[in-house]
Amino acid sequence: MNETEIIIEPGRQDIVITRVFDAPRDVVFKAVIDPTLIPAWWGPRAASVEVDVMDAKPGGRWRFVHRDDNGTEHGFHGVYHDVVAPERIVQTFEFEGAPGHVALETLTLEEMDGRTRYTAQAVHQSVESRDAAVQSGMEAGARETVERLAELVARL
Amino acid sequence: MNETEIIIEPGRQDIVITRVFDAPRDVVFKAVIDPTLIPAWWGPRAASVEVDVMDAKPGGRWRFVHRDDNGTEHGFHGVYHDVVAPERIVQTFEFEGAPGHVALETLTLEEMDGRTRYTAQAVHQSVESRDAAVQSGMEAGARETVERLAELVARL
Repeated sequence: MNETEIIIEPGRQDIVITRVFDAPRDVVFKAVIDPTLIPAWWGPRAASVEVDVMDAKPGGRWRFVHRDDNGTEHGFHGVYHDVVAPERIVQTFEFEGAPGHVALETLTLEEMDGRTRYTAQAVHQSVESRDAAVQSGMEAGARETVERLAELVARL
Repeated sequence: MNETEIIIEPGRQDIVITRVFDAPRDVVFKAVIDPTLIPAWWGPRAASVEVDVMDAKPGGRWRFVHRDDNGTEHGFHGVYHDVVAPERIVQTFEFEGAPGHVALETLTLEEMDGRTRYTAQAVHQSVESRDAAVQSGMEAGARETVERLAELVARL
């Protein structure tokens, strides 16, 4: 069985999420890079997501807005440093509810005989800033995001 | 006396460089944001620096090229996440000699009664990647960079 693993070691500045998908790497890459597919997997199921901007190339910006059942909106944005199809995306990440706290996200996709190892790492400016993200319930949301992505790639 | 402090703690993913400059914050910000001034301070004295690209706004790219006495060139590039005059610049950083290793750099300038506290933090994707940067002699280069910046702001 494929399981999502979330690694949060004490005293470190990063969070690492891994998962093996039963799909070729090209399919997983398409799922994560296509703006029209973002609402199908990005964030928790309870929120709807709107892609405000997603210009997936070096220097391009991205901004997504979550809207929950009460109409509360949460914005997230960043810029792309690197987009190397179908293996790597490096981008910055800022939750607009905690302005000024920026993380560097690295998504790596590795081919494994028709399956794909997905590794999403986020390194924060400080241990405190990382721990605040974890305290905010980020772990459950991240787990749901990866589950939804697994469901999406199974359909593609 | 003002001293440059470089903090590299074992097991952490970041490097923090601090210095107090005898100049108002606006002057220090101008020095770091003006492309025409980059060759006067960025990198070691022994190298000449060419600004290939420097579009200092969110999503803008930057690329600088060092050239040493032997004509050897080293490229560095990244993208700007945030540029908040005169207090903060957040950008990505990649040394082209170690492709795929990206750091998130945060420069913070704090006003202190006409003087300015400069804090440059670089957080790397891994401890190993940070330590490799330190092993490559980055510390001496960083110290020289800050010294040169102090000399420049004294002239502005």
